[in-house]
Amino acid sequence: MNERELGRRVGGALRRIREQKPLVHHITNLVVMSETANVTLLVGALPVMAHAREEVADMVNLAGALVLNAGTLEPDWVEAMILAGRRANERGIPVVLDPVGAGATPYRTETNLRLLRELRATIVRGNAGEIGSLSGAGGVVRGVESIRGVEDPVGVAQNSARRWGAVVAITGKRDVVADGERALGVDNGHPWLTAVVGTGCMSTTLVAAFAAVEPDPLVAAAGGQACFGLAAELAAREARGPASFKQALFDALYHMTPEQLEDGARVVVLA
Amino acid sequence: MNERELGRRVGGALRRIREQKPLVHHITNLVVMSETANVTLLVGALPVMAHAREEVADMVNLAGALVLNAGTLEPDWVEAMILAGRRANERGIPVVLDPVGAGATPYRTETNLRLLRELRATIVRGNAGEIGSLSGAGGVVRGVESIRGVEDPVGVAQNSARRWGAVVAITGKRDVVADGERALGVDNGHPWLTAVVGTGCMSTTLVAAFAAVEPDPLVAAAGGQACFGLAAELAAREARGPASFKQALFDALYHMTPEQLEDGARVVVLA
Amino acid sequence: MNERELGRRVGGALRRIREQKPLVHHITNLVVMSETANVTLLVGALPVMAHAREEVADMVNLAGALVLNAGTLEPDWVEAMILAGRRANERGIPVVLDPVGAGATPYRTETNLRLLRELRATIVRGNAGEIGSLSGAGGVVRGVESIRGVEDPVGVAQNSARRWGAVVAITGKRDVVADGERALGVDNGHPWLTAVVGTGCMSTTLVAAFAAVEPDPLVAAAGGQACFGLAAELAAREARGPASFKQALFDALYHMTPEQLEDGARVVVLA
Repeated sequence: MNERELGRRVGGALRRIREQKPLVHHITNLVVMSETANVTLLVGALPVMAHAREEVADMVNLAGALVLNAGTLEPDWVEAMILAGRRANERGIPVVLDPVGAGATPYRTETNLRLLRELRATIVRGNAGEIGSLSGAGGVVRGVESIRGVEDPVGVAQNSARRWGAVVAITGKRDVVADGERALGVDNGHPWLTAVVGTGCMSTTLVAAFAAVEPDPLVAAAGGQACFGLAAELAAREARGPASFKQALFDALYHMTPEQLEDGARVVVLA
Repeated sequence: MNERELGRRVGGALRRIREQKPLVHHITNLVVMSETANVTLLVGALPVMAHAREEVADMVNLAGALVLNAGTLEPDWVEAMILAGRRANERGIPVVLDPVGAGATPYRTETNLRLLRELRATIVRGNAGEIGSLSGAGGVVRGVESIRGVEDPVGVAQNSARRWGAVVAITGKRDVVADGERALGVDNGHPWLTAVVGTGCMSTTLVAAFAAVEPDPLVAAAGGQACFGLAAELAAREARGPASFKQALFDALYHMTPEQLEDGARVVVLA
Repeated sequence: MNERELGRRVGGALRRIREQKPLVHHITNLVVMSETANVTLLVGALPVMAHAREEVADMVNLAGALVLNAGTLEPDWVEAMILAGRRANERGIPVVLDPVGAGATPYRTETNLRLLRELRATIVRGNAGEIGSLSGAGGVVRGVESIRGVEDPVGVAQNSARRWGAVVAITGKRDVVADGERALGVDNGHPWLTAVVGTGCMSTTLVAAFAAVEPDPLVAAAGGQACFGLAAELAAREARGPASFKQALFDALYHMTPEQLEDGARVVVLA
């Protein structure tokens, strides 16, 4: 795949999201529920947030993708994640894991490792501190922030991808996406993304929406991140601070056309 | 009641909300808590979100209306809904049920039917898929979205109203409100409402605020929906996308006068 | 301390927040999680929301301050608050308690009193109804709103501060801050703050961020409130209603410089 072809693939995926309106089932943290549900709707998919063990398996049956986001874990929610994830695995529904805060406490680290062990994640998306902590490659997390990354993000992503049998996406100035063999870089984005809570989670949500319609999870992971980063670039032009930026980003996501994404996605082949 | 009189009734109800500042107690979903609390405050009422079984009955004692919203159900919260709803029923405090996602999973459908069985709902407000699923009239829900409505919304609303002993409101391009004998239509609104998460829930919140001051639940249900739809119409004039629309809608709700609502409400008599 | 010196102190504290980026661990209510996390980030600190008993003590170890906010209490969360608060007390990490809705129900009042008994709060920040209810000085709360304050806020703050061994901050047109001996008033703010949900909680979050870097909790409490009130003043100039005001407030907080705060803080010595 060259970069032009990648642009066409991610633009085409956005078109299919709008046509198919896949349901993206989230079991996610309490902080970003409203934002990630809105992002799902803005990109053209349908959101549902459902965490009761009594219904998660039934709900995921209807879904095109499942997001498991570890931002405000507690034991009952972890059990629900396992139940939903197993059903998704049985049905071949893509599972996107966002290990928010892994590395900050033993509970977060161990729980995310348990999810990786008991479920087959299709894509794992995190910051360098989180992925580094989970993979044993280093990286330091304070709260949910990566305060020390990893020296070789592509290598860490490749190794983690092989170990977990998943596409691994590490968000940073350049997002890195790897499946153990191939690796892509995504250069869309804007510094203000770091001044808004939950932009990592929103990116994960978009990755899941793309995974619901794009069979190659490497392309889906790159596409979701490119789409989010491009919306951020468009939004920054008219924002006066992080809050007006977030609003403009949401509006830009809604108005983004497949052609705009095809042209604006800066996805490069790294390996 | 003719349409002119209905305008006066809903305008007068808005005036009383501002004067009396009723407390609207919500046991609601995790996604829309901030938005629905803000909408309560913007229309002139006072919000409280409280779900602990240890306090819900005490809290509802202070309230002018109780919202039970099923968007992110779990068993403990359902028990709290029953406790709060029973107390509200004993005290004659209006109960507004929003069966979010009913029809999507057996758990959601059965839990909402249980609430309808064990409590006396004053008003039930949902989309056509949700009301259709609960009433057995058809309708399909994916996640929380109605993806197939019902053929005869007025008939379904009337039948459901008779069965549940409640006013039933079905939101759509034309909102339909029925009490088993009378039926009203509300033609306020804007297509962008479907691009913002939680607009159904916000509408339910307004219906509850109106029910706290207006003794006729048919008028309260129509009034809350007209008020929300009119704010949406005003907001759409200056918005550039769903996110700026949501902000403008909130500002419009805050500035809306009883006179504006009286003139702008498009409530029609259907039966 | 005179007022000029107080201005320098709070400006200097803002500078240190930006330099040190302290982690502010919140165990807070479900309504304001997104907003308070964003406010933490906007002022220059790092937010984390974590409530599982399995991790709260580990998380607070990393924190510069702990927020305990009682807005949507339930028993499991209260136990987590106790665990986190004890660890914070052992480590000398400031604990800021926001007794949201104390006085509205016996459960809220008793739980907040229990937190004050079992933990050493560094700062307690609430409205006049909440502080009045907890201290036995009067005050009436409906939901989370103070609908009757106390006659002598300075005296009530001083007495409560002595009883609880904490700095007590009572938010109002003039915020009052007292430690049992000294008392300060903060005159920054704007009426629209009462039309936005969670502004008290956001103020508490800023107080905690200031307490993470400023050893005198009286100054920290005044500084956080002055910072928030000044941002509100700046925001009101360009807002058209409470929702655009909230967005402008967030942007203003992000752009506020230590010099601006030093000049704009209106902190007066009351005792």
